[in-house]
Amino acid sequence: MAPATPTPTTPGRPRAGIDAVVFAATLSTVHRLGYTGATMDRIAAAAGVAKTTLYRRWPSKGALVTDCLVDAFGPPEAFGPFGPLPLQGARRDQFLSSVIRWFGGRLSEPGLGAAFAGVFVDAVSDPSLREALSTRLQAPYLGVLKDVLGKTEEHVLLIIDVVAGTMLHRMGMTGAPMADADVGALTEMILRYIAACPGPTDVC
Amino acid sequence: MAPATPTPTTPGRPRAGIDAVVFAATLSTVHRLGYTGATMDRIAAAAGVAKTTLYRRWPSKGALVTDCLVDAFGPPEAFGPFGPLPLQGARRDQFLSSVIRWFGGRLSEPGLGAAFAGVFVDAVSDPSLREALSTRLQAPYLGVLKDVLGKTEEHVLLIIDVVAGTMLHRMGMTGAPMADADVGALTEMILRYIAACPGPTDVC
Repeated sequence: MAPATPTPTTPGRPRAGIDAVVFAATLSTVHRLGYTGATMDRIAAAAGVAKTTLYRRWPSKGALVTDCLVDAFGPPEAFGPFGPLPLQGARRDQFLSSVIRWFGGRLSEPGLGAAFAGVFVDAVSDPSLREALSTRLQAPYLGVLKDVLGKTEEHVLLIIDVVAGTMLHRMGMTGAPMADADVGALTEMILRYIAACPGPTDVC
Repeated sequence: MAPATPTPTTPGRPRAGIDAVVFAATLSTVHRLGYTGATMDRIAAAAGVAKTTLYRRWPSKGALVTDCLVDAFGPPEAFGPFGPLPLQGARRDQFLSSVIRWFGGRLSEPGLGAAFAGVFVDAVSDPSLREALSTRLQAPYLGVLKDVLGKTEEHVLLIIDVVAGTMLHRMGMTGAPMADADVGALTEMILRYIAACPGPTDVC
């Protein structure tokens, strides 16, 4: 189902302005109450809009949080420009390190880690939400990472699972983002794996 | 708060019998309705007990699911006996491979992956639940893995985050357990990392 055009709460208020208000309210509500406690009612109240306004634009909390994550993580173009691709050796390692640190930094922003983890759990039992996460949140990064690393989609998907999954699991166990030393060790684990199988379809 | 003694629904029915019924009802309800949809009301109905019976024994859904996971994963003694520790080389690699495959197999059981992922999300905003997950579910495995691998707690915690987090993230993105080829690649990534830093406090 295509999302309907949102109804502005103020005449002439631009749609981007409303989205920004709703996304900020979503993250602050998840930060205060957790993903489960952040109901559409509470998010609407925090944003100062009617709940029907939210449902006109997003069919579910999962769809709203997915759009909120896409907005918060931003376009992958911010990683470039790169020069000739795929990157090799030290330049490739430096690129991957900075992507992993960037991701860890984002997850440590208030509400963002809990929102990210929560939407994945809803996705386990919601195929349309998995589709949205896959095509809207993951696909743009997947494309850039394939080009930059010169690896198959299968390999890059595993790397994404390792980086995102490890950091989210740590956050669930400790309630806090991963410390720098552990981010470094995780990065090292992935760099060793990639160095051992540099070709696009090498299976390590 | 210490959990109170449960009230059996049948006079003389042993406590272990009730727990088994409630755990099975918990997993089947999570499997059908997802973690968020599996309320204490619905779990009680599926188990054929009163909701107050559940709350007498478990203060929250997270606490119930934690006990359910402890029961489903079982005691780490099942991995042994090992002989002289720490294991080295091929024996260590074989041990780790079998643990990773065992974990992946467990996660693919109906309801178990969704229950595991869900309780971690609740834990992000619930310190007492994190404490329960850490001491009741993770600590026994952490202890065995430290002894068998001869690594520091810090290193073993990272390996646990990588294995569990990666597999849960994959399940959130695809709705299905990780395929064998990817489990193999993940295992190889971890084995390479450990082989590169075999000492107990080596930082790779």
